[in-house]
Amino acid sequence: MTKIQTLVWGEFRHEKKNPKVAALYPDGMHETIANALRADSALSVSTAWLDQPEHGLTTEVLAATDVLIWWGHIAHGEVSDEVVAHVRQRVLEGMGLIVLHSGHYAKIFKALMGTTCSLKWRESTDKERIWNIAPHHPITAGIGEYFEIQAEEMYGEPFGIPTPDELIFISWFTGGEVFRSGATWQRGNGRVFYFRPGHETYPTYHHQQVQRVISNAVHWAKPTVCIPDGCPNWPPLEPLPIDPEAAERPTEGHR
Amino acid sequence: MTKIQTLVWGEFRHEKKNPKVAALYPDGMHETIANALRADSALSVSTAWLDQPEHGLTTEVLAATDVLIWWGHIAHGEVSDEVVAHVRQRVLEGMGLIVLHSGHYAKIFKALMGTTCSLKWRESTDKERIWNIAPHHPITAGIGEYFEIQAEEMYGEPFGIPTPDELIFISWFTGGEVFRSGATWQRGNGRVFYFRPGHETYPTYHHQQVQRVISNAVHWAKPTVCIPDGCPNWPPLEPLPIDPEAAERPTEGHR
Amino acid sequence: MTKIQTLVWGEFRHEKKNPKVAALYPDGMHETIANALRADSALSVSTAWLDQPEHGLTTEVLAATDVLIWWGHIAHGEVSDEVVAHVRQRVLEGMGLIVLHSGHYAKIFKALMGTTCSLKWRESTDKERIWNIAPHHPITAGIGEYFEIQAEEMYGEPFGIPTPDELIFISWFTGGEVFRSGATWQRGNGRVFYFRPGHETYPTYHHQQVQRVISNAVHWAKPTVCIPDGCPNWPPLEPLPIDPEAAERPTEGHR
Amino acid sequence: MTKIQTLVWGEFRHEKKNPKVAALYPDGMHETIANALRADSALSVSTAWLDQPEHGLTTEVLAATDVLIWWGHIAHGEVSDEVVAHVRQRVLEGMGLIVLHSGHYAKIFKALMGTTCSLKWRESTDKERIWNIAPHHPITAGIGEYFEIQAEEMYGEPFGIPTPDELIFISWFTGGEVFRSGATWQRGNGRVFYFRPGHETYPTYHHQQVQRVISNAVHWAKPTVCIPDGCPNWPPLEPLPIDPEAAERPTEGHR
Repeated sequence: MTKIQTLVWGEFRHEKKNPKVAALYPDGMHETIANALRADSALSVSTAWLDQPEHGLTTEVLAATDVLIWWGHIAHGEVSDEVVAHVRQRVLEGMGLIVLHSGHYAKIFKALMGTTCSLKWRESTDKERIWNIAPHHPITAGIGEYFEIQAEEMYGEPFGIPTPDELIFISWFTGGEVFRSGATWQRGNGRVFYFRPGHETYPTYHHQQVQRVISNAVHWAKPTVCIPDGCPNWPPLEPLPIDPEAAERPTEGHR
Repeated sequence: MTKIQTLVWGEFRHEKKNPKVAALYPDGMHETIANALRADSALSVSTAWLDQPEHGLTTEVLAATDVLIWWGHIAHGEVSDEVVAHVRQRVLEGMGLIVLHSGHYAKIFKALMGTTCSLKWRESTDKERIWNIAPHHPITAGIGEYFEIQAEEMYGEPFGIPTPDELIFISWFTGGEVFRSGATWQRGNGRVFYFRPGHETYPTYHHQQVQRVISNAVHWAKPTVCIPDGCPNWPPLEPLPIDPEAAERPTEGHR
Repeated sequence: MTKIQTLVWGEFRHEKKNPKVAALYPDGMHETIANALRADSALSVSTAWLDQPEHGLTTEVLAATDVLIWWGHIAHGEVSDEVVAHVRQRVLEGMGLIVLHSGHYAKIFKALMGTTCSLKWRESTDKERIWNIAPHHPITAGIGEYFEIQAEEMYGEPFGIPTPDELIFISWFTGGEVFRSGATWQRGNGRVFYFRPGHETYPTYHHQQVQRVISNAVHWAKPTVCIPDGCPNWPPLEPLPIDPEAAERPTEGHR
Repeated sequence: MTKIQTLVWGEFRHEKKNPKVAALYPDGMHETIANALRADSALSVSTAWLDQPEHGLTTEVLAATDVLIWWGHIAHGEVSDEVVAHVRQRVLEGMGLIVLHSGHYAKIFKALMGTTCSLKWRESTDKERIWNIAPHHPITAGIGEYFEIQAEEMYGEPFGIPTPDELIFISWFTGGEVFRSGATWQRGNGRVFYFRPGHETYPTYHHQQVQRVISNAVHWAKPTVCIPDGCPNWPPLEPLPIDPEAAERPTEGHR
């Protein structure tokens, strides 16, 4: 069986500047995420990051990618508009996209949602309890009723997204807030999943259930088709009236 | 009662170049649409067009607009990105937006949808029959089961849009095609309605039921709020654990 | 302007058996809800309850009702199937329906949803914080970012409902759970709103913001049409091929 | 790999009364549908019909069924309410359900939708062209842009269903109508697909693409879980305030 070509994209900046983040993710957050996925033999996993040429997202790389995972935070503005347009095109053709945590403000996520993608936030000692709202959904396979992250950044509602096609998770935070933590949208021929956890100063991507959700989501988001955009001039399938004056006639009312 | 401040934006180029269009719409398509709306005393209607400074969509004008109606076709690329960003911001704050016909490819519509917005098309002698799929919806008040346009450009599926919140109309064309001709989406705090009819070489905007749909849609799309974007740092509402090491502890499993 | 004919239906049993409930709602929960709505001069408000003939929901009463509010709990099974069928018919024709709290298990709600409508629950000292997820929605007018109920029964996810058309509120509970506390569905020509708060042993329906939400919902749910069900044999609008053998011919492939 | 246990349920009455139907479907419509599915080695296919004991839908049979396909027409009223309740329970637990053509009025479909499921209809010589609105969807794999049925009963809008989660097909009819011919809904843990074609007096279920759609839908609808209904009393996960008087205190306002 063909493996799912999975590409984990990381901003890879915090890890170089902040010793706390470097201690948690010595090879970068993207490598921790990728290593967890590599335990799944159905996936072929590689990584890319911001400071590579074309951010590691060349035409060849994107053409060969089935599912792209995106983590970014402090350098959204450094991602080139051309690369964003190219990623967007690939999603609309059929590529899957998984956007993590602070990627809610990534150019690519905002471009696909069309909305602000804003939210409330707090970096503190909140516990996050993530409730499984969709126990039938492939993304929640093996997750159970809920799972907990001992400390995470809080994200709170209202979250500036379009109504999700499917709401998968809702988070409870110690400090009193709630958040739509997992949600899906079809965009063109591609599937998009947003998953909330993963602030860089917490060990979230070492969490087994966080890893499980991401792995499930890769399987769920794998492409079924690749359909390039087109807006064709289309000949009629049935005979048309030969009536050059039709447009001049007054229009009829309804029944 | 305060009137709904309604602004009809037209590209206003075909009318100056194509005598057939000029004959149908001597003052521009936007003026025909606006004049029909002026029959409704609950609306205060003005117009703007591409070749005005800032396309007639200055900060002051947009701030005073409740519902914006958009018709564009051959000059989408000439609409400045700054103006598009400003219109998008106003929609997300709460302004209503009605996009007509070839506006499916307008920058503002694509920016709010996040998708290709592509379709099939044919300029010919098709009759269009527009079926009312949502007889309960305010946009279809007074429209009946269906209405007909004696000749129109054909638009065919698949239409590259996100699943609409509400599907209002489906069109039947003589040549054998179908199209989702009326659809709504909530985007942020604003309501968006796409309405298919209105190719420039047909007298469509003189059609009473087309006018009725647009008028209904203005009422439906009027703002309920105006909420500027924000992404606040938010203090807790409940006491947090005083536990600086929480993030270091292994995470718990689920029940 | 015609007033919105609003009918508050209460089970009215707990109030007669449980002194704690009687102390909170001396005239019945339905009367407390109705009295709050009577402050709104746009509404004409009456009440009905289970132990009336036909549960107070005769053909004449239902025909004259614009919006029905439903609270039931221990006696769902005593509501006659005929009355449920009649209420369902009226909703599908266009009547609005607001289902409160334990009404999640009312026959009428389950009949309109098609699902289990099950949930987790706990009667204890939880505080409920109800977050406004849809600040643009008419149902949340004047509600602000959130509001709190000092003690309420907990309801937890997963809630066995179809994906709502619009998710309005999400609740946070002290004990660690979340719940989709306000949600809307279009059912036929009628609008349905489910609103979580209101266990009989708490003074919830004296809470100003709870009252405000219900009042907003009545305005939102008022009918736009009344369309009786029908499944008509429909003559063609276009000429059909005169070809009695068409069904015998092999079918064509696609392009 | 475990095969998908697929059960094709037919009313099997027209075939015994109407020679035209018997000529088209000598062993019954359900056998024609089942035989087409038997070409797919991933499926294990059996059949059941109305006049069997418990309509062939015993507890054992339903417990062993992954996906149920339903065709009924003139005898919806003879299907026992107990069996309908049992099928509904199995769908909500996770079983897939595919409802064909006149099954729009089957008790089980109406019970899961909550609406009238009414439509317009005409038995005549209409050609039906079924447009693929969702080329990315597994149900449309191999179907192309559209396919045609040379003669079929017409079904027209408005179709009295809740907004589908996914709209898959829209039909064009010669006589001038349109119809949402393929649509999906999640109901509890089960997936539901409605597919329009298949009036008994036409050879529709011998049509290769109709067969392909049904086969695709079986794969799509196969269960991911089986979760029995429950409404548990749930203990808190976090400490609650020890405050028996909380419910007596006045409620706080919002920020």
